[in-house]
Amino acid sequence: MPMTEIELQAELNDLRMSKEAQPLFDAVKRHIAENVDPITEEFFRLGEGRADRWSWAPGQLELLEGAKNKAKAAGLWNFFLPHGDTGTPLSNLDYAYIAAELGKSPLSSESLNCSAPDTGNMEVLEMVGTPDQKERWLKPLLNGEIRSAYVMTEPNVASSDAGNIETSARLEGDEWVINGEKYFISGAGDPRCKILICMVQTNPEAARKAQHSQILIPMDTPGVQVLGPMRVFGDDHAPQGHMHMRFDNVRVPKDNMLLGEGRGFEISQMRLGPGRIHHCMRTIGKAEVALDLMVKRGNSRTAFGKPLSQLGKNMEVIARARIDIEAMRLIVLKAAKAMDLLGNREARVWVSMAKAMVPERVCQIIDQAIQIHGATGISHWTPLADLYADVRHLRFADGPDEVHYMVVGRDELGRH
Amino acid sequence: MPMTEIELQAELNDLRMSKEAQPLFDAVKRHIAENVDPITEEFFRLGEGRADRWSWAPGQLELLEGAKNKAKAAGLWNFFLPHGDTGTPLSNLDYAYIAAELGKSPLSSESLNCSAPDTGNMEVLEMVGTPDQKERWLKPLLNGEIRSAYVMTEPNVASSDAGNIETSARLEGDEWVINGEKYFISGAGDPRCKILICMVQTNPEAARKAQHSQILIPMDTPGVQVLGPMRVFGDDHAPQGHMHMRFDNVRVPKDNMLLGEGRGFEISQMRLGPGRIHHCMRTIGKAEVALDLMVKRGNSRTAFGKPLSQLGKNMEVIARARIDIEAMRLIVLKAAKAMDLLGNREARVWVSMAKAMVPERVCQIIDQAIQIHGATGISHWTPLADLYADVRHLRFADGPDEVHYMVVGRDELGRH
Amino acid sequence: MPMTEIELQAELNDLRMSKEAQPLFDAVKRHIAENVDPITEEFFRLGEGRADRWSWAPGQLELLEGAKNKAKAAGLWNFFLPHGDTGTPLSNLDYAYIAAELGKSPLSSESLNCSAPDTGNMEVLEMVGTPDQKERWLKPLLNGEIRSAYVMTEPNVASSDAGNIETSARLEGDEWVINGEKYFISGAGDPRCKILICMVQTNPEAARKAQHSQILIPMDTPGVQVLGPMRVFGDDHAPQGHMHMRFDNVRVPKDNMLLGEGRGFEISQMRLGPGRIHHCMRTIGKAEVALDLMVKRGNSRTAFGKPLSQLGKNMEVIARARIDIEAMRLIVLKAAKAMDLLGNREARVWVSMAKAMVPERVCQIIDQAIQIHGATGISHWTPLADLYADVRHLRFADGPDEVHYMVVGRDELGRH
Amino acid sequence: MPMTEIELQAELNDLRMSKEAQPLFDAVKRHIAENVDPITEEFFRLGEGRADRWSWAPGQLELLEGAKNKAKAAGLWNFFLPHGDTGTPLSNLDYAYIAAELGKSPLSSESLNCSAPDTGNMEVLEMVGTPDQKERWLKPLLNGEIRSAYVMTEPNVASSDAGNIETSARLEGDEWVINGEKYFISGAGDPRCKILICMVQTNPEAARKAQHSQILIPMDTPGVQVLGPMRVFGDDHAPQGHMHMRFDNVRVPKDNMLLGEGRGFEISQMRLGPGRIHHCMRTIGKAEVALDLMVKRGNSRTAFGKPLSQLGKNMEVIARARIDIEAMRLIVLKAAKAMDLLGNREARVWVSMAKAMVPERVCQIIDQAIQIHGATGISHWTPLADLYADVRHLRFADGPDEVHYMVVGRDELGRH
Repeated sequence: MPMTEIELQAELNDLRMSKEAQPLFDAVKRHIAENVDPITEEFFRLGEGRADRWSWAPGQLELLEGAKNKAKAAGLWNFFLPHGDTGTPLSNLDYAYIAAELGKSPLSSESLNCSAPDTGNMEVLEMVGTPDQKERWLKPLLNGEIRSAYVMTEPNVASSDAGNIETSARLEGDEWVINGEKYFISGAGDPRCKILICMVQTNPEAARKAQHSQILIPMDTPGVQVLGPMRVFGDDHAPQGHMHMRFDNVRVPKDNMLLGEGRGFEISQMRLGPGRIHHCMRTIGKAEVALDLMVKRGNSRTAFGKPLSQLGKNMEVIARARIDIEAMRLIVLKAAKAMDLLGNREARVWVSMAKAMVPERVCQIIDQAIQIHGATGISHWTPLADLYADVRHLRFADGPDEVHYMVVGRDELGRH
Repeated sequence: MPMTEIELQAELNDLRMSKEAQPLFDAVKRHIAENVDPITEEFFRLGEGRADRWSWAPGQLELLEGAKNKAKAAGLWNFFLPHGDTGTPLSNLDYAYIAAELGKSPLSSESLNCSAPDTGNMEVLEMVGTPDQKERWLKPLLNGEIRSAYVMTEPNVASSDAGNIETSARLEGDEWVINGEKYFISGAGDPRCKILICMVQTNPEAARKAQHSQILIPMDTPGVQVLGPMRVFGDDHAPQGHMHMRFDNVRVPKDNMLLGEGRGFEISQMRLGPGRIHHCMRTIGKAEVALDLMVKRGNSRTAFGKPLSQLGKNMEVIARARIDIEAMRLIVLKAAKAMDLLGNREARVWVSMAKAMVPERVCQIIDQAIQIHGATGISHWTPLADLYADVRHLRFADGPDEVHYMVVGRDELGRH
Repeated sequence: MPMTEIELQAELNDLRMSKEAQPLFDAVKRHIAENVDPITEEFFRLGEGRADRWSWAPGQLELLEGAKNKAKAAGLWNFFLPHGDTGTPLSNLDYAYIAAELGKSPLSSESLNCSAPDTGNMEVLEMVGTPDQKERWLKPLLNGEIRSAYVMTEPNVASSDAGNIETSARLEGDEWVINGEKYFISGAGDPRCKILICMVQTNPEAARKAQHSQILIPMDTPGVQVLGPMRVFGDDHAPQGHMHMRFDNVRVPKDNMLLGEGRGFEISQMRLGPGRIHHCMRTIGKAEVALDLMVKRGNSRTAFGKPLSQLGKNMEVIARARIDIEAMRLIVLKAAKAMDLLGNREARVWVSMAKAMVPERVCQIIDQAIQIHGATGISHWTPLADLYADVRHLRFADGPDEVHYMVVGRDELGRH
Repeated sequence: MPMTEIELQAELNDLRMSKEAQPLFDAVKRHIAENVDPITEEFFRLGEGRADRWSWAPGQLELLEGAKNKAKAAGLWNFFLPHGDTGTPLSNLDYAYIAAELGKSPLSSESLNCSAPDTGNMEVLEMVGTPDQKERWLKPLLNGEIRSAYVMTEPNVASSDAGNIETSARLEGDEWVINGEKYFISGAGDPRCKILICMVQTNPEAARKAQHSQILIPMDTPGVQVLGPMRVFGDDHAPQGHMHMRFDNVRVPKDNMLLGEGRGFEISQMRLGPGRIHHCMRTIGKAEVALDLMVKRGNSRTAFGKPLSQLGKNMEVIARARIDIEAMRLIVLKAAKAMDLLGNREARVWVSMAKAMVPERVCQIIDQAIQIHGATGISHWTPLADLYADVRHLRFADGPDEVHYMVVGRDELGRH
């Protein structure tokens, strides 16, 4: 017997991790502590100061593969897939708890084959891929053998309105011919990146929601050009990068179309719900890191005869950070629960609430942590500047704040 | 077998109303709709423009008693008492859901014998009162026959630091002799107010936490003087008022001491946890009223050719209000759940989080609702100005924001 | 030789009071200290607790007339009139300095015949009044014998868009017949209020900017009904009030039209520039009062062993208030100077900058002063709650914040 | 005859550029437009992608020297020096106007020999240098032949409290022996940097304000080690850099001491007033760049059928930016004027007001410009990310915000 509306609403407030997920959650934390934290510093040190910035340094991938193999051996692999017969099926709610842990360190997600944008790409392939597409791309992705990128944003239009996307795909015989310019293609610099899922306009004459499609483009297709990295606050994030790309008469087989021509927005809806929640929950983890650093610095440095934490507004800043982290955590958990109970479509207002609230406020928390560190806070001696750049970036990615406020505002206006 | 710490933490996120409370919740909503809403406008109209402002107008109490009797008949009575053998025992979590409904209209709480400060006073009497004290004061309070006041704040010291309280009680023979000045004694103007619970300093030489006591003072004791009402933004709230009082050699029997000399702070701790959560949850209800009015006005008024809701930042203001209301609701529910699971003492940081977060942000939401109404918003044509004054007041009552930030901040600093 | 554009822009930054105005400025300060401050408390005490709230108490007007007569005798009279042959002509810049002093106490403005809305009404009459209109209404206003009101805002439309105004005036023979409803008519409750300047719609078919007119309506005209006071945060401001009025077939002679039919907006432009600056500069004075009280309280009250001013964020709150007061002062002075040098029309963006910036920020400063006072801050024991209500009201009056941001924003967009 | 206090206060509001400075101001703008803007893009392009990051690329310095020579030839050289017989003496007020122009592009300051930290270092040398010191270091600095750095901040203490500085200088015979660690030494990576002014602790036993000294250290002294660059949001700012340095038994002649042992804070006071104002005024220029970009992007990009500038809160964001830029400009001008009229010491509260207000608010304006650009805003395709990093850095440099609020707050508390 299905739940009544009242029962559903009540159930939405059960934000507990399931008992079944607890062992996995514990195992993930243990894995991070035992297999990831110990290699993180060395991994990044190996990559520093290289002439050939767009490859991995000798030893880097070996370290990472070591952690991946341990995760695979422990069964901590691909569990992000909510419907997966290929992974451990987890509810969005349970995954949200885990994602908060993953957000605390930069290598954790990949060590578990759970890093963006591969997770979203794998989800899409699993849901809408043909057997051939799954065999060729999903399988090596699930094995962690290759990586992928999601090719959406364009430099020449306001991509916040996805209807503006103008990279074109035109059918010529048995091939789609793709032309256009994209940027901020995260991960496309990685030598391991072999496949792109690309949003293209297939029919400018169609109804607004049916003009666009998503299509698979192997990285090595002629005409796929990586023009260079986009720097984010001066950092090129080599060798993975957020790449600027051009597609110049790129030809792919007709069968590379996902789900069907004109169904690009439909696929976007599929991927965005969970993806946004994963992002937001990882961001809660980042906020925890920032608050932890803020407190430690506040307790350990002294000025004018007192620990910084006792000076001026600092204690209130710390308290507000804690309060808002807890509030954001609950909102993200509720959005995850809403996806589990109501489906992505019905949950979309909850998802937009989380996406609008979290990155903006966490940017502030990181910024306050920076301030209490003095100039050290913007340097490479703490992870704060990187965290800031990441989370600042998130205020555009998957829809800018403004679009999510619009979703929530329209729903509110409509309910009265 | 008691829960492990991990199980406890997990359980704290089960924020569902209990299935047992749902019928009560429904009955309360029905009672408000059927018995309270229909009399509210008349109740206040009767009270307007009176020469004798400090009495109830003919007919007012009759209306209210009618609603109270219906509630009593329906068993909707005294359910706030968490440990009560005299009422329906409700968890703090369940009560929080109900309180959000009570906050939406000014007479609901009293119609169910659930209004401040009587609820807190009844709780204290039930927990620490002697059989005589219970017979004489708790019984008529539980019956809704009399009302009470809580006498804490003093005009001459910063009462945010309760250790500053200087109204004195000195034992002379079998009597305590009380001298001092208090203000903002809510409800002490009501002719039905018969008993005061008063915070006094009994021993300035004792350890800091043992200097104060709480004592029962019947309203008609010689020397109890009501000097006049404190106006709040110009409104004297007659006939209940927030009164300015003097205690001039007020003598009460030794037995009027509650719990024991020097145990005043202990009693404060008892009353404050639930009281703060009730306040906060009622405040969520007030925020809902404000948002509802904001949306209705935004949709119905037109300027420059568009509904106000479509102009400038208004839709974002509305969206942010919705997001923050949901975030605050979850934080308050979590604080209530923490009291249920951990006890008031362990839950105190959660309670301070809610108390610091909610009144400040709800003031802003009400203020934004005011702005969208134009001058009507600050007038008596909407409830917004009253709501604002109420919630603004709450930023001092039960500890000012600053004290709650201190509680949260110290806890955070201590955990690292 | 007129200044070049560059010279003009340079000159706009000479924000000094003129040497000629300094003696007047000093005399005004002396007058307030000697003649107004000493009577203020008694004036308001006489008005308290009256049964007949809508008249002046015996003795009140005598006190005020005493101060007025002293001002008149000292030549401190009507100096607000910028073009006046009837007063001391002052630049807007010089007047702005004086207005900041007037804002610090509630009776100062009227004691010098410089209170709103009479100042604006007198300006309009002087600029556009016929000799008859001047004789009948301007003369007694300039003498301080009668008072006036400005009748603009309507309850049934969003008056922020003045084009919405729908109170109608229709010509029947030699008379205008006026019908409609207005509210927040400040001062219309005062028994001395004898004349209204009323914004009416005279031709709904005309071009948008030519549909409205301003017309003189003597208070005692049949059909002029005062329905009652609008309360502001619960306070009715008797006996002056912000009145709710109805005009029911009110007939006035054709000659009562100001300037000409359809020229209502033109008159609005005349009055609003200076009026807004006067308001803003008085508001700076109010912010000074609030900051002064905040500092005094912060220095004199102690909690947790320290003066409040040394606790938490309080010193930063105080510093930010000082910084923002100085910034606002300079912006207001610059807007006044722009009116002097460029004329009201060219200066309108500067005026909107001041009007958008000042009331919102000063509300916050007053609110912070309230917070440091605890509950005393919202009571009648300090002027803070009244100041807050006043300045909050100003965020709608003379155009809500939103309209002024629109003016500034459009100008900025247009300049690129 | 000196001005009276009242005349002084009045005079402080004359914020006009002097007539004498206008031609210089015009010449500087012309120089930037004709000699600097045309070389800027090429200058930075030459520096990109170099293996040897810590040298200038062939051609870079030639471009810059070309612009410098043109400036020198036009007499636009060293005019920052307020007391200079070596330059064009300018008031702080006049210089503030020019600095706002310099802030708009990254090469302007150096092209005029007016870039930090050389300006401060030259000022100090001119004021307190011995003839020998001037000959050896000031002369080539004034000629633009060498560059210099200011060595203050330390990684191991909270340098916001300058009393914490612990790099030591101990006298051994005729030499000072210096040991310690410093970081964020701006410009010390530049091959042209030849001289350091270094804050050292010379006597930990002295009175708190007499423990520190400032001393000249030639860059090529044995023991001066550049450990590497501090990255700012990931950018190392090669080849100038913000360097991490160690001083390991660095020996300099006794005569290298500036002004005298124990007078380090005295020198700090000299340099900080003007330096802070120059920084703040350049920051106003940066805010203008950001607002300009925000408006252009808002007008040129379209989403949901409208230019971005017409969507949601964007127009209000733009209006608030304009208002606050004008307010900040006036505050900075007033602080500069206060230094001119009252001297650096008396003006210090005004300087702290500007320093506390400007960088924080300009960071927000740049951030809002970033948001309206989408991901382009954080990339290297606009100057916004660099501007943000620069201005964010400024919230620590020359005293963090918190210290300046303390200066203003204490002054305010002291005046009551």
